[in-house]
Amino acid sequence: MLSGEDSRRDAVKAIMSSGQRELVAELERLDGGARFGRFGSARLLENGDVFERACVVSVNRGGTLGLTVAIHPRNPYVPAFQAAFRYCEHAGSWWFGGAADLLPCYGFAEDAAHFHRTLKNHCDTLDPAFHAQAKRACDDHFRLPCDEPRGVGGIVFDHLCPPGPHGWRRAAAFTAAGIATVAPAYFPIVRRRKDLPHGDRERQWQLHRRGRHVEFALAHGAAADAETVRMTLPPLARWESGFTPEPGSAEAELASFVVPRDWASETAAAVG
Amino acid sequence: MLSGEDSRRDAVKAIMSSGQRELVAELERLDGGARFGRFGSARLLENGDVFERACVVSVNRGGTLGLTVAIHPRNPYVPAFQAAFRYCEHAGSWWFGGAADLLPCYGFAEDAAHFHRTLKNHCDTLDPAFHAQAKRACDDHFRLPCDEPRGVGGIVFDHLCPPGPHGWRRAAAFTAAGIATVAPAYFPIVRRRKDLPHGDRERQWQLHRRGRHVEFALAHGAAADAETVRMTLPPLARWESGFTPEPGSAEAELASFVVPRDWASETAAAVG
Repeated sequence: MLSGEDSRRDAVKAIMSSGQRELVAELERLDGGARFGRFGSARLLENGDVFERACVVSVNRGGTLGLTVAIHPRNPYVPAFQAAFRYCEHAGSWWFGGAADLLPCYGFAEDAAHFHRTLKNHCDTLDPAFHAQAKRACDDHFRLPCDEPRGVGGIVFDHLCPPGPHGWRRAAAFTAAGIATVAPAYFPIVRRRKDLPHGDRERQWQLHRRGRHVEFALAHGAAADAETVRMTLPPLARWESGFTPEPGSAEAELASFVVPRDWASETAAAVG
Repeated sequence: MLSGEDSRRDAVKAIMSSGQRELVAELERLDGGARFGRFGSARLLENGDVFERACVVSVNRGGTLGLTVAIHPRNPYVPAFQAAFRYCEHAGSWWFGGAADLLPCYGFAEDAAHFHRTLKNHCDTLDPAFHAQAKRACDDHFRLPCDEPRGVGGIVFDHLCPPGPHGWRRAAAFTAAGIATVAPAYFPIVRRRKDLPHGDRERQWQLHRRGRHVEFALAHGAAADAETVRMTLPPLARWESGFTPEPGSAEAELASFVVPRDWASETAAAVG
């Protein structure tokens, strides 16, 4: 018979691996072109019609089981997306952690509001106070080294271990539901923007923004192994020195767009 | 009248700024196309005929005066080059530091031997034992996070403060000569390789190698401000997952080429 710990780890493994399988299938359907390849415990799609790179990496290191998702779309109007789901056991205790955030190159209020509302609805199933905390933690955590937000945020939480006899089960179910929330939170945005016409100007801006993401990932990714970090990086990134977007341009507007804001409460009319 | 410290700092400032001016002029002549622009204390050339990016940044932060050089050539057969020259004063003591290393995408023994021999000749003017130490320090320091050498090395030294009444003057002159050694150490290699024909395969390999350099720079560049670090980064870099060069290819050979080796002692015949 399995110990309580072993059966818990097995249950989390099953959640992570079925989550990985489903997300991979959904991403392939949305891309419509490329298929995911397998690299050890990672599933990786490259050079798709919609996604330049998408990876769904299953992690099993020390006391941690997890799933890391990174999506770098081809069209600069489609925001990049990152998420991580984590289960840890250490010194007899256990907890869940997670994060999801949206990284646009161009600000669409409709997209940011949809993303945050979907995450809030998911968080509310656990506890009505949870979203506000996890949103604030994300706004605080995902800041670039020069203290600009790297995107429009999302949620970050750690050390989730609800008390009570069903605490573990509730947190595990919340994690499974979290993985299943990637598609409704992100895919409608992808569909809305993936065919918007764009040219070299938008592509260069996207590569510039990706440079910032690389800086962030390499500054904060030390906990993961080098190959996993690399897989989550954008395939191509640019560094331009002293580059400032033209005042008044859509590129220049991003800076004020990514300022932390209570997106989930904004009505559709207000953001339309 | 100036204090001893002030006049020393002024003398170093003069060395750094005339070094910057001369190197910029030499790089412009070698490029033949683009000119350097000015960004605060940085001089930056972009999109040249020979250099995709070259920067010569003068640094004046706290007790440190310095010059940082980063050169990213367009042709994948031309190695990238980095160097830094530094003067520090702290709590009544002073010292000089420096580094220079060569980062090829393709291994040419002739280039590596020329580079190391030129640096050794320069180091020998200070002390015949100096080069071996500074070469070993470079081999130890410039290793990528996954413990592969990032290039064929060069020299690294710090806390250089020769004793005696002329110690400061000797170290300052060594630094001025070091800046003047960039051209004879690196430019003949640039001239030899800059017109070699290449295609997309070589370009993709170059972008892949640059990805490794970005990882290194961001892991070790925390001491400098973000804008200076960005200026030294390659303009464009690629991350490919699970990418391994074809066995036996020129790209695959790089791994064994960049292993630390006593390049300066190899005769022209042996490396021909």
